[in-house]
Amino acid sequence: MVTAATQGAVDIEKANADAFERLTAADPWVIDVGIAREVIPGYTDDLILTSGAPMPWSEYVGGQREALVGGALFEGLAATREEAIAKFDSGEIRIGACHDYGAVGSLAGIYTASMPVFVVENRSGGNIAFCNFYEGKEPRRLNYGCYDQGVHDRLLYVNDVLAPVVAEAIRRQGGIALKPLIARALRMGDEVHSRNAAASVLFSRAILPAVLDMVAEEVPNVRETMLHLAENDYFFLRLSMAAAKASADAMAGVAGSTLVTAMAFSCRGFAIRVSGTGDRWFEGPPPIHEGKLFAGHSEDEITWMGGESPITETIGLGGFAQACALSLQDYQGGSPEVMISRNLEMYDIVHGENPHYRIPLFGFRGTPTAVDVRKVLATGVLPVMDVGLAGRDGGQIGAGVIRAPRECFEQAAEALAVDHAIETEVPR
Amino acid sequence: MVTAATQGAVDIEKANADAFERLTAADPWVIDVGIAREVIPGYTDDLILTSGAPMPWSEYVGGQREALVGGALFEGLAATREEAIAKFDSGEIRIGACHDYGAVGSLAGIYTASMPVFVVENRSGGNIAFCNFYEGKEPRRLNYGCYDQGVHDRLLYVNDVLAPVVAEAIRRQGGIALKPLIARALRMGDEVHSRNAAASVLFSRAILPAVLDMVAEEVPNVRETMLHLAENDYFFLRLSMAAAKASADAMAGVAGSTLVTAMAFSCRGFAIRVSGTGDRWFEGPPPIHEGKLFAGHSEDEITWMGGESPITETIGLGGFAQACALSLQDYQGGSPEVMISRNLEMYDIVHGENPHYRIPLFGFRGTPTAVDVRKVLATGVLPVMDVGLAGRDGGQIGAGVIRAPRECFEQAAEALAVDHAIETEVPR
Repeated sequence: MVTAATQGAVDIEKANADAFERLTAADPWVIDVGIAREVIPGYTDDLILTSGAPMPWSEYVGGQREALVGGALFEGLAATREEAIAKFDSGEIRIGACHDYGAVGSLAGIYTASMPVFVVENRSGGNIAFCNFYEGKEPRRLNYGCYDQGVHDRLLYVNDVLAPVVAEAIRRQGGIALKPLIARALRMGDEVHSRNAAASVLFSRAILPAVLDMVAEEVPNVRETMLHLAENDYFFLRLSMAAAKASADAMAGVAGSTLVTAMAFSCRGFAIRVSGTGDRWFEGPPPIHEGKLFAGHSEDEITWMGGESPITETIGLGGFAQACALSLQDYQGGSPEVMISRNLEMYDIVHGENPHYRIPLFGFRGTPTAVDVRKVLATGVLPVMDVGLAGRDGGQIGAGVIRAPRECFEQAAEALAVDHAIETEVPR
Repeated sequence: MVTAATQGAVDIEKANADAFERLTAADPWVIDVGIAREVIPGYTDDLILTSGAPMPWSEYVGGQREALVGGALFEGLAATREEAIAKFDSGEIRIGACHDYGAVGSLAGIYTASMPVFVVENRSGGNIAFCNFYEGKEPRRLNYGCYDQGVHDRLLYVNDVLAPVVAEAIRRQGGIALKPLIARALRMGDEVHSRNAAASVLFSRAILPAVLDMVAEEVPNVRETMLHLAENDYFFLRLSMAAAKASADAMAGVAGSTLVTAMAFSCRGFAIRVSGTGDRWFEGPPPIHEGKLFAGHSEDEITWMGGESPITETIGLGGFAQACALSLQDYQGGSPEVMISRNLEMYDIVHGENPHYRIPLFGFRGTPTAVDVRKVLATGVLPVMDVGLAGRDGGQIGAGVIRAPRECFEQAAEALAVDHAIETEVPR
């Protein structure tokens, strides 16, 4: 008997194959660094972006609310915390969701109008994605819900010192292809989410010809910028996120596709987008976590204040490539055995294996890529993500592994009106 | 009943513990680049060094003989091949073994008087080791038994362009600590013998402050040198070898110690040195191999023309750390499973686990370090090494894994007068 579910299955398979093909064909290049207000379409001076599915101001709590306030103060949209809150209340300062602007935010993911952003172009699809800069190693950072003089100064340092040099170097190089750089970093111990040590140094090497010219021409701040990059192993994460966003967006909007195109969370909860349902978010509770805390911190301090770096897992990196980066065991906890089995488990819930991003430990098997809503529900296996952990008083207090909640996938399946139990029809 | 063997065992254990302690305490720094004739003690203009236990000229055959002739031509010690051969015959050109001069040679391991060498100091022991420079990616190289105009030009490029820049950068930095750099590279997919991709880029990063100053001061050839380094992932191998030699020498000469302090081979065969017997070599047949050849080459072309890069395995790197560098599977063949089991097997024949060099895949277990002659004989497990493979017509034709022959260890045990079958008394 032909049921609605089996009738639909053929189209779903074709839609997913199309979406997967677009994803794996994506060719992200960082082509520039620009100022948010100038390069992000629709950006206005009164706009602050933050992580997760869009919410009204009143629902932002804890660290994510503090981060929004910090963003307003940093940008000079308010002189005091109270003034900032009043302006958020009145709508004089507007809040947007990063993803709605082609951007992705790390942790709380605060963007303000004057912030420099990487401009990443998918050269096979023409779409553009953005990500702003890493603030540096100091655990107190705006994107971890902190704002004080030190945070302010470090953000200005990014705006005034680092970004102009990196921008000019990228432009002089004619852009940098990120896909081969990421593929190489996977052979060098990174999964380019919680570990970017190799990718960061490879990026510095990629801009070296331009940098050497700039030093010879006495362009200001080049030496300082390069030494900063040399000391910041997470510098590349923002490029990895922008590359992932540019790649994931390429697979969005394929009618009938059940593949996940974004995973993100806010202080309220976790949410996913699915190719066949476009920009709609399917929300669930906060993620399930297991982690390792920095010395002096305890489990009850962990708080959720947003995070969109799981865009890397969305395209088969991060937790989906953690067997490339086993040295993460001393950063986020776990053992090689656990990391390997977690990575292998992801093959059960994805559409396919990435033809470009490969895992040496698995004999160069492609990373598990493109989570299929149906397979998550059929297997009960939840997508895994490597993330930094924020503390209730702000700042990074550790790192760990989170799992997306099942509820998001249930809602997505309902919206897609697909059968939850189709695993036996799906090639494994 | 107390036998000679059990009586001696206590002293051997203590001697090995002492030697191991000296090895693991070694703190190799590259402090300079100098010209062989100026910095290697006892070096004279008529001297050419080559790999393996010392032999008379008449016994050098094939590629290693060609490499010696090439060295004589490059150095201007002879104008023609015939003249070079005549001068080797007469002793007018002298041949030395690299190890006798504190040096180690890659493949044929040719040193001539004008060649630049890395000067590596063990800052915990004060001893110095040397290694000359990588010739570049071209398969036809002097150390693979080739000499022609191209080889000549590339060697001169090393002498005149690369070495002076690298020398000045190292001096300006006050030397570069190699042990932490190697430890970090092991987390980034290298085993620093057949894979040096991470270590090479980390080295470039380590000299970056000096390099940026030099560019600003318009020191010649800096840009060219840095771009050359950026394209040559094997650049670091020679630093890895010199660091290993400086470390291995620190454990030499401990009376009663059965730990191997050098493994090297020539066209004639493989040889080892052991701590308790000082500079004496114990020779055997050529190594046993399995490898992967570059396209267009066949197994019967493989020839032995020397190699001392197994000094890296001697201190617990290379093949003894191959589980760090699983991406080597597509360079030298094998599968992750085979590489992992080969690496694990090495724990059966070593004195201990390296406290500094660690393997993420094994939960940061220290690399198996310091081969014990007795354990090789007791277990029948032969030390494994990652090496480049040379072709009978010269040049590199592939890469693979070799094993040291048992005969070397039998002779060493005889000279040390130790019982071969003591495995049950040795802590595992």
